[in-house]
Amino acid sequence: MDRYLVISGDGHAGLPPEKYRDYLDAKYHAEFDERLPKEIAMRAAMEEKLLVKEFNDKWRAACGDDIYGVWDSAIRDKVLDGDGVAAEILFPDGITERNAPPFGADVGLRCQGANPELLWAGARAHNRWMVDFVAMSPLRRIGLAIIPVVFDMEMAVAEIKWAHKNGLRGVLFPCMTDGYDPYNHPKYDPVWAVCEDLNMGIHFHSGASPPLAPLPGAIGSFLMEFPFWMTRSMWQMIFGEVFERFPRLKVVYTEGSEFWFPWMVKMMDIRASVKHTSGKLGDFRAKLTMPPSGYFNRNMWVVASALADRDTMTACYELGLSRVIWGSDYPHPEGCWPRTKDKMMVSLGGLPEADLEQIFWKSAADVYDLDLPALNKIAAKIGPEKQWLATRQAAE
Amino acid sequence: MDRYLVISGDGHAGLPPEKYRDYLDAKYHAEFDERLPKEIAMRAAMEEKLLVKEFNDKWRAACGDDIYGVWDSAIRDKVLDGDGVAAEILFPDGITERNAPPFGADVGLRCQGANPELLWAGARAHNRWMVDFVAMSPLRRIGLAIIPVVFDMEMAVAEIKWAHKNGLRGVLFPCMTDGYDPYNHPKYDPVWAVCEDLNMGIHFHSGASPPLAPLPGAIGSFLMEFPFWMTRSMWQMIFGEVFERFPRLKVVYTEGSEFWFPWMVKMMDIRASVKHTSGKLGDFRAKLTMPPSGYFNRNMWVVASALADRDTMTACYELGLSRVIWGSDYPHPEGCWPRTKDKMMVSLGGLPEADLEQIFWKSAADVYDLDLPALNKIAAKIGPEKQWLATRQAAE
Repeated sequence: MDRYLVISGDGHAGLPPEKYRDYLDAKYHAEFDERLPKEIAMRAAMEEKLLVKEFNDKWRAACGDDIYGVWDSAIRDKVLDGDGVAAEILFPDGITERNAPPFGADVGLRCQGANPELLWAGARAHNRWMVDFVAMSPLRRIGLAIIPVVFDMEMAVAEIKWAHKNGLRGVLFPCMTDGYDPYNHPKYDPVWAVCEDLNMGIHFHSGASPPLAPLPGAIGSFLMEFPFWMTRSMWQMIFGEVFERFPRLKVVYTEGSEFWFPWMVKMMDIRASVKHTSGKLGDFRAKLTMPPSGYFNRNMWVVASALADRDTMTACYELGLSRVIWGSDYPHPEGCWPRTKDKMMVSLGGLPEADLEQIFWKSAADVYDLDLPALNKIAAKIGPEKQWLATRQAAE
Repeated sequence: MDRYLVISGDGHAGLPPEKYRDYLDAKYHAEFDERLPKEIAMRAAMEEKLLVKEFNDKWRAACGDDIYGVWDSAIRDKVLDGDGVAAEILFPDGITERNAPPFGADVGLRCQGANPELLWAGARAHNRWMVDFVAMSPLRRIGLAIIPVVFDMEMAVAEIKWAHKNGLRGVLFPCMTDGYDPYNHPKYDPVWAVCEDLNMGIHFHSGASPPLAPLPGAIGSFLMEFPFWMTRSMWQMIFGEVFERFPRLKVVYTEGSEFWFPWMVKMMDIRASVKHTSGKLGDFRAKLTMPPSGYFNRNMWVVASALADRDTMTACYELGLSRVIWGSDYPHPEGCWPRTKDKMMVSLGGLPEADLEQIFWKSAADVYDLDLPALNKIAAKIGPEKQWLATRQAAE
């Protein structure tokens, strides 16, 4: 094939907030109707507060109506065609696109202080819509179910089974478990078991953080800390021996700053090597049969979202490309789109074909159940030409 | 001089818990008497739960009575002589030695959930004792005052002035501000001002973390996270423009895993370089006149406690030795003592003399007001011989 099969590990999709009503259990409609205007106003205020208008306006002007692919099926496939992307993983949205699921069940999925019943209701509304959205283009849409897992293991297991049965192919879990048990608690075992059995990869997507005070240094601090908040599950699960009990369980970290991961993997290995400094704390890794990096390299993947420079690709090499899945982050302003191919050229142009195959689809094929022959047919028409990416072009 | 002047950046000192009563304001005696047995029992239970008995017993057997240098002045100086250490920075203690100041004012200095009045009372009791302890050997003891700064700026400023006037030469601040304002809040400006004016370096010492649940993976997770909890002030202060307003303010991070710091410094510089991915958040570094690493390299130091291997020293080189202060961590089990010189040899033997001078005293001399001629007289008698450290000996 003279084109690459590209599977984006990071896409966002969600309805305009008022339309989630149709997917919500009727008993929550009154609560939904009361909260809707407040939620819309709150998200508008957050956008006002956090986003630079000039940046945002310029970016939106370049998007045109194609941004409505965030909920419109036909536009979505057209955008993917233009980007050269055959299929993509679909996360919910929130924050910038004003299309978050109700009751806080957005990509940040904060559980602390949330009403568990309402958060579940919001998540289910989104999951139902996602089932419909996937059904309109099932080959190209790898939909994830939102699972606010911390509240109730039985409900989580049931929803994961429902999602799998209805065509979804992975789950989104909250990054931050504050106030609830961390992911090294054995109570999560039934959840790990069903995810392993059904090959439903567990996804953690960046975004969640403690509330930001409007102070100088708040944005810089947020940028320093979000990879930490999103990856605590990594050491909780590895040191918590989860992958000893569930060796085929898969975990995916999306949009978490590529350079962060080699550091944390190295740090886990340092911590696990018994040294004088931690000797007093006992042999906390007695049940681990591999160094932590062994579990990382078998059970975990990193989605390199919005790869737009060469330094980031260097971090991916350090991580090992078998761990890396390329992602576009459509339709977020920090993503590749609407200049996906320009950014592919800047970050990837001239790299060996085998390396690009690895991050464009091979790593993804290790995580998800994919119909590769059918996807290759799509890629043969719309994928980026290998010849085009074979030479590095000068960055603008 | 044929011996090195060595100043340890990490020493702990504190009274047996019952003896702090003599240094506590009388109005807290009833509360103290009621809590004392509970605190002793709580710390014994924590030791039981967290520390490996076999490790601890073996280590204590090697210490003999010299461990009582933690509060005994004569033993303290004898231990320093044996270690070749001319002077040291004195932190409070807690956790392992059962000699923590009252009401939670230990080296962890957790403020969340604490009673501010009692925490201040406990801190002041320790500070008073520390003034006495320093006075018994003022040249060799660089005492720090415990300042639970988050509660009240005026009280903090007053206590820092009192501490300086009474011979203390730096302050210990809480690493974790949870529930209170982070260190990028401008309300701390009067505190930064007095610390800058009086050359009272601000110290953050590892140890604090959210409570540990007794779960598999808890220790591994703690070890992965404590450097994060202890260094959040780094990016809060740098991105919060604190060093633009207080360019001579000094901050010291003690026992935080040396490899962590080059990563965080690099990460701050990455975050501060405007890129597409953070462009939507605006120019949050407009008021910074240097890259974050510039402030780090001017205003911050790292104490490499318990240097016991060559890898850690490699991390110190990466950080730049002008940022590094050697520390023994007496009398903690994870520290160098009672085998300080063996560990010096393993970690430092054969390295260039100028490099050892830098981490043994030059970096410390940039932070603290020191009487170097007088200290050199002590070092000329008890310091490690340069000849002895000039060649690397085989590790056991």
